[in-house]
Amino acid sequence: MPLTGTRKWLNEVIFGTDTPAGKYFDVVLIWAILLSVTLVVLASVESLWVRFGETFYQLEWFFTALFTLEYITRIYCARDRREYVTSFYGVVDLLAILPSYLALIFTGATYLMVIRLLRVLRVFRVLKLVRYLSDANILMRSLWQARRRIFVFYTSVLVLCIIFGSIMFVVEGPRHGFTSIPKSIYWTIVTITTVGFGDITPHTPLGQAIASMTMLIGYSIIAVPTGIVTAELAHEIGREKQLARCHNCGKAGHDADAEYCKQCGYRLEDFEEPLEEGG
Amino acid sequence: MPLTGTRKWLNEVIFGTDTPAGKYFDVVLIWAILLSVTLVVLASVESLWVRFGETFYQLEWFFTALFTLEYITRIYCARDRREYVTSFYGVVDLLAILPSYLALIFTGATYLMVIRLLRVLRVFRVLKLVRYLSDANILMRSLWQARRRIFVFYTSVLVLCIIFGSIMFVVEGPRHGFTSIPKSIYWTIVTITTVGFGDITPHTPLGQAIASMTMLIGYSIIAVPTGIVTAELAHEIGREKQLARCHNCGKAGHDADAEYCKQCGYRLEDFEEPLEEGG
Amino acid sequence: MPLTGTRKWLNEVIFGTDTPAGKYFDVVLIWAILLSVTLVVLASVESLWVRFGETFYQLEWFFTALFTLEYITRIYCARDRREYVTSFYGVVDLLAILPSYLALIFTGATYLMVIRLLRVLRVFRVLKLVRYLSDANILMRSLWQARRRIFVFYTSVLVLCIIFGSIMFVVEGPRHGFTSIPKSIYWTIVTITTVGFGDITPHTPLGQAIASMTMLIGYSIIAVPTGIVTAELAHEIGREKQLARCHNCGKAGHDADAEYCKQCGYRLEDFEEPLEEGG
Amino acid sequence: MPLTGTRKWLNEVIFGTDTPAGKYFDVVLIWAILLSVTLVVLASVESLWVRFGETFYQLEWFFTALFTLEYITRIYCARDRREYVTSFYGVVDLLAILPSYLALIFTGATYLMVIRLLRVLRVFRVLKLVRYLSDANILMRSLWQARRRIFVFYTSVLVLCIIFGSIMFVVEGPRHGFTSIPKSIYWTIVTITTVGFGDITPHTPLGQAIASMTMLIGYSIIAVPTGIVTAELAHEIGREKQLARCHNCGKAGHDADAEYCKQCGYRLEDFEEPLEEGG
Repeated sequence: MPLTGTRKWLNEVIFGTDTPAGKYFDVVLIWAILLSVTLVVLASVESLWVRFGETFYQLEWFFTALFTLEYITRIYCARDRREYVTSFYGVVDLLAILPSYLALIFTGATYLMVIRLLRVLRVFRVLKLVRYLSDANILMRSLWQARRRIFVFYTSVLVLCIIFGSIMFVVEGPRHGFTSIPKSIYWTIVTITTVGFGDITPHTPLGQAIASMTMLIGYSIIAVPTGIVTAELAHEIGREKQLARCHNCGKAGHDADAEYCKQCGYRLEDFEEPLEEGG
Repeated sequence: MPLTGTRKWLNEVIFGTDTPAGKYFDVVLIWAILLSVTLVVLASVESLWVRFGETFYQLEWFFTALFTLEYITRIYCARDRREYVTSFYGVVDLLAILPSYLALIFTGATYLMVIRLLRVLRVFRVLKLVRYLSDANILMRSLWQARRRIFVFYTSVLVLCIIFGSIMFVVEGPRHGFTSIPKSIYWTIVTITTVGFGDITPHTPLGQAIASMTMLIGYSIIAVPTGIVTAELAHEIGREKQLARCHNCGKAGHDADAEYCKQCGYRLEDFEEPLEEGG
Repeated sequence: MPLTGTRKWLNEVIFGTDTPAGKYFDVVLIWAILLSVTLVVLASVESLWVRFGETFYQLEWFFTALFTLEYITRIYCARDRREYVTSFYGVVDLLAILPSYLALIFTGATYLMVIRLLRVLRVFRVLKLVRYLSDANILMRSLWQARRRIFVFYTSVLVLCIIFGSIMFVVEGPRHGFTSIPKSIYWTIVTITTVGFGDITPHTPLGQAIASMTMLIGYSIIAVPTGIVTAELAHEIGREKQLARCHNCGKAGHDADAEYCKQCGYRLEDFEEPLEEGG
Repeated sequence: MPLTGTRKWLNEVIFGTDTPAGKYFDVVLIWAILLSVTLVVLASVESLWVRFGETFYQLEWFFTALFTLEYITRIYCARDRREYVTSFYGVVDLLAILPSYLALIFTGATYLMVIRLLRVLRVFRVLKLVRYLSDANILMRSLWQARRRIFVFYTSVLVLCIIFGSIMFVVEGPRHGFTSIPKSIYWTIVTITTVGFGDITPHTPLGQAIASMTMLIGYSIIAVPTGIVTAELAHEIGREKQLARCHNCGKAGHDADAEYCKQCGYRLEDFEEPLEEGG
């Protein structure tokens, strides 16, 4: 059943991005999200909280009220209410306001407040506004195509970390900070990913030799996920470029190095993304 | 000589993955492996050992008994017993149970227990169960194709590390932690792989200048293994995609960007791996 | 209105690179820039300032006078004076000399002196002298083509950092150095980029587990920008190679692996960049 | 003038790799090089020097004598003596023995001994023995093709480091370890290359924000050299594969995914490198 009247108009404004009002709403929303997230982040700094605690408190309720109003309106004008409430963004929308109300009941639940930071996920909802979606799609599709290879890669890395971690536990031992195998595995992950905090470091010559091996292996296998993603991305980007249509006559299938449409001579700017249906 | 009777059935269940019983066995086995590995890892945490030592001990013997039973059954039903026992997985299967028995004879050999962590290697045996094998094959084949280039690369990196390590030993000297050339080489590897623990750092201006050079070189040569692996992977993946067969009519040789079989119109999903014979 | 006389000649020397005098001027200028930048850098070392302070002061005024003279001459001989003064390099040219004069008025404004380091940006102006421009162009064009994908990628990374940062703030808390959410986000960025200073490190087992996850994610997503840039660069380089012209007969469109011009047999050296018009 | 008699035979053995004697000589030489380098490295460890000093001293003279004999023989049998002595490897051969003799004259010049580690460079001379040369050639050719792009990239990174370094010097100042601009630039290089020693870290919120920006930039530009090298390597490897000849009939130009020669059906193993003339 198609929506009518106010509900239809609200749906177009809140969920849609095609009308000027819908675009304006999205711009306001993205600023509200960014400001409220900044607020929660800054409120965690004790020196700021001591000085501006009252202001933070009032602003927080202002944003909670705003997002509550938005949440209710979204439920009101959704095409399928059950679907919206149980969808990923529906749950995020709820989590964005719930902690503030729960804090009224359970006083002292300050850590609960951190959940409000999930609001930052709502940024992605608004990103559909702009042309960035098709680029996000390419990234996601490449990662999705490569999912099995990435899984095999991570399994191998974890097995490697467990084996090297247990060797380091035996070689270095609790004296040098390798107090247990889980901690040794943590150290191996820190090392193999080339992070290298330096909170735990090998002190025996043998331990340093094994650590060197771990690092050189890490240096080498960093190439594997890069290779996987690059190969998929190159494929996806190449495909997108071939599917790109001329903005003038709509012809597709131009050569990868074509600068002008081979049918009408119109300039092909920046190889725009193909027209997505839906979205 | 083909196997018959119980031996044939056991072989299908334990070594095979085609029958429902064989798949069920693999699922049970992978859980047993993961649980027993987790057990060994957690048992190394002293606070947990103090509290649950007895439980760990009993569970460890339960898994040892289980894997012993499995090992004996594998020997019994193997197509070629000698081949199985001397194969890589045969040795790993033995190493998975031996340390527990040896610990009965040589008391106090706790470090021996760590060998049991090699059980984690058995995870790979079970991975053949699923479709991940062909993806693992692509990764392995790419690395294998690139083996000589990777060897040349590592030789160059090691020569670079020896030269920079000895320069840093002369420039910084024992006063600043560069107590010997091996330690300086260890530092150079830590730096060139961009791990950077920070346990040893240059303090003289000249040392910091040379360290900066080392880092910029490391930053640059990190590109080489990535380039090697990416070039090989792109080749292998492109080849696989061309060899991918339609699941409906079996036709291969579709264009890289084809979404439907050009012979029967069936959807080519995710460019499945080509049917592997054997495995 | 075309320039004439001295102004035309000065314009050719200062802004141009085609005449011998213009090339000579650029070489002198690049040395003056590098020397003056080195001067400012060294003057910040206290031990050197104490010993050579007077010399630094005199040399600084020598370079300031030189660059002031250059700036005035540039204004004098610019084709469009207003355009030059308001252009990016016009502002950089002014910032290169202004701090020294301001320091006469506002004594003690030593930090102002650091602005003089923007002189280093002038290096890029002179780089147009040599053939490096077309290579810089390829790099810039690839990054520009990939701008939207890079933006989507950075948004995702920042959202990830905010979420992981707030989780670490809750898990580790102020006791272990995670004193506020901004600091936790700082730590997450340090970790996810695999820098790993080690000034703040997780101490609880749960914190170390989450840190391990952060690192493995960072290890994996480091592949995404690489993939994006590589795919674009490969496209740009491939295109450039196809557009490369024979230096003898000017024919383009040779095969990527061609070593000799297929029309005249002249050796195609290193696939030189195509002749750029303008520059 | 072609060599004759003993000189010709010695030339074939020492410089050549085609005769069995030549191969045998190379194998002995590579072992002598590796052993003598290990010796110098180990001799720098004080605890080992105290215990085995005498043995180290004798072994060192044994290798010096050996390499002196080799150097003299090389001069004797070289096709062009002047060319050999002034060539890169000629100088390295001299540097490999000179420090030991100079130490007799200038007693106490222990740091001079480190020069002997340049012997490790001689490893590359012997590598020509094996088939690794063509793979090393591909790596070198790719880097050479990309030299201008890499130069542009490094110039940009250095300019970035100078600008960020001076900003950090102003923001953090000597109180937090940023004692001078050179040191700040060192810190910026440590950070932008994602090494992150942690010996100097920002302590002010503004400094940490700028540091975060530096890291994210570093994370991103790490993609550029990778992209450059990958694009070149993919080109070189693709070209090599097309040039690969069948080992049976010598036909080249097989498809990239061909497994058998399309002329004679002989298996194309691992796409061997094309036959190099010279070497």
